[in-house]
Amino acid sequence: MNLVRAVEWIGDRNGHLKLLDQTLLPGIVQYRQCRDLESVREAIRQLAVRGAPAIGVSAGYALVLWLQGNALADEAEVFAAVEYLASSRPTAVNLRWALERMKKRWLEARQNGQRGHALDVLLEEAHAIAEEDRLMCDAIGKNGAELLQPGQGVLTHCNTGALATAGTGTALAILWEAHRQGKKIRVFADETRPLLQGARLTAWELQQAGVDVTLICDSMAAQVMKEGKVQAVIVGADRIAANGDTANKVGTYGLAVLARAHGLPFYVAAPSSTFDLAIDSGEAIPIEQRDAREIIHFGDRPTAPEGVKVYNPAFDVTPASLISGIVTERGVIQPVGKKEIAIGLASRS
Amino acid sequence: MNLVRAVEWIGDRNGHLKLLDQTLLPGIVQYRQCRDLESVREAIRQLAVRGAPAIGVSAGYALVLWLQGNALADEAEVFAAVEYLASSRPTAVNLRWALERMKKRWLEARQNGQRGHALDVLLEEAHAIAEEDRLMCDAIGKNGAELLQPGQGVLTHCNTGALATAGTGTALAILWEAHRQGKKIRVFADETRPLLQGARLTAWELQQAGVDVTLICDSMAAQVMKEGKVQAVIVGADRIAANGDTANKVGTYGLAVLARAHGLPFYVAAPSSTFDLAIDSGEAIPIEQRDAREIIHFGDRPTAPEGVKVYNPAFDVTPASLISGIVTERGVIQPVGKKEIAIGLASRS
Repeated sequence: MNLVRAVEWIGDRNGHLKLLDQTLLPGIVQYRQCRDLESVREAIRQLAVRGAPAIGVSAGYALVLWLQGNALADEAEVFAAVEYLASSRPTAVNLRWALERMKKRWLEARQNGQRGHALDVLLEEAHAIAEEDRLMCDAIGKNGAELLQPGQGVLTHCNTGALATAGTGTALAILWEAHRQGKKIRVFADETRPLLQGARLTAWELQQAGVDVTLICDSMAAQVMKEGKVQAVIVGADRIAANGDTANKVGTYGLAVLARAHGLPFYVAAPSSTFDLAIDSGEAIPIEQRDAREIIHFGDRPTAPEGVKVYNPAFDVTPASLISGIVTERGVIQPVGKKEIAIGLASRS
Repeated sequence: MNLVRAVEWIGDRNGHLKLLDQTLLPGIVQYRQCRDLESVREAIRQLAVRGAPAIGVSAGYALVLWLQGNALADEAEVFAAVEYLASSRPTAVNLRWALERMKKRWLEARQNGQRGHALDVLLEEAHAIAEEDRLMCDAIGKNGAELLQPGQGVLTHCNTGALATAGTGTALAILWEAHRQGKKIRVFADETRPLLQGARLTAWELQQAGVDVTLICDSMAAQVMKEGKVQAVIVGADRIAANGDTANKVGTYGLAVLARAHGLPFYVAAPSSTFDLAIDSGEAIPIEQRDAREIIHFGDRPTAPEGVKVYNPAFDVTPASLISGIVTERGVIQPVGKKEIAIGLASRS
């Protein structure tokens, strides 16, 4: 299986970061060879690298690149570099999380008199962040693959694969693993308007890896279910409340309603870090509105009249009652409820 | 209300046909002034004029344009012109229907010794076809508007308006009429992938006419329903079986399932000529597959990897059990069932 790698460190302490330029997909497969902090920051800002885990991993390596040229930097300089990187996508939780982890390691190294070795220590930490992400993906894959039977069709939405993580992804990790196990699954990928992550990224990833994939428009999902072409739906998650209500790419909620109406199981795949136990239910999750331009233009061409009103929520919230199970790196939470989630997350931590 | 006209005869027997070039919408509003059969045929073939009723009306006028230069044509020549026009879109039922009607009038005129006046007779017939279409649209509008309350939100799909008919449309005719009556409805228009008729045509038509319209991606319909932004769904139909099962633009079936899950009425609007009583149920309606290119390209730009498998059904079938009512020019068939349809169509014919 030829799995694409979105983020890869090339070489040793003097090495560099190789990023797949996702803005050019699927037309052009081109990598950016990033040799300084600025080029990684630009890649994050321009969405050349995307997906919360992949952004976090990239930011860790970006700090290593910066240290290559600033081996004897003082605390203020390191902190400034961290803040500069964090500002590239201020709302990305994993970006801040990875950078704080790198900062802590640098502080420890200095305290332990290893400041001269800070570069080695931080490269080791960046590798650790990437490796943990890979293991998390693999574990989600293994846990989720058990839910699928040989020959089944699976519908997915948006992009949750190798392009979004340092590993095999979340929802797609399950599809990779089932494929690897020889289950011969058939994937139906929603194109995922308005930004077409399903068409541009998911279909491309699966095609590259030799998985049987069929692209559909989002509006065709109901027909695909009605015709019996799929036996399950698996999606990722942006945030999961304590009761299991799940925020994910817009269109997910409709798929969950359609899956229920057709008697199909609807699974969410996400690392346990996606749960926000401070939030009781999905009602507390604000719905982000995005720019009308995403819908009324394709590239430079208008697809709708100028000035038309547009409603463009970036995601929607699927109530726990419509979710058959949540697949994490720790196992499958099933049924989905506040108690089951608390047990599923706590017992293995 | 500034309602756009897709098809309009300009002048008298020496006049010409003015067609709105829908391939350029919404970016450019440009009309084709057609002065011969060939230019109308090209407009039909290129989808510059589209929508079954609008195509039928255009074909009628195209034969008039042909007669302007062939006043003394014999039967073989007239029949050949009819067949040549009919071949522009061989599957369009209304095109054939309108041309057969024109042919019959020409034969009658010849029989009555009016061959020299054939041009006047056929212009009259083409006007009659257009006028009947306008009256049909108005009647659907009036019958359907009674189903809507002031201030309600209505979701619609694809394009069923003035651009598709000689009049105000089918589903959109209801929205025009409710708007004209001062009901201050708010319309949510699905963009309708892959060909974006909702974004390019419906949103534009409604905007031109001053109706409150908001454009959404197809995948956002469930969220719009959940948020209580719409109180009804109204769509058109391509074909309706004797039991009420309805074939319409792909995405319609999913909307019907979502409407039911949210407790919203789901209406179909169509002229009685859309019923195909020879077909018992929707199972007998074949699902046309269209070219993958519609989904994997936008203009000349790829939106998905070359060679990816695509499933692209042009329409889907909504079972009668999910349809709250069918609005025709004769009234509202409600509830929707074989008996009610037979009564609704027969008693007024």
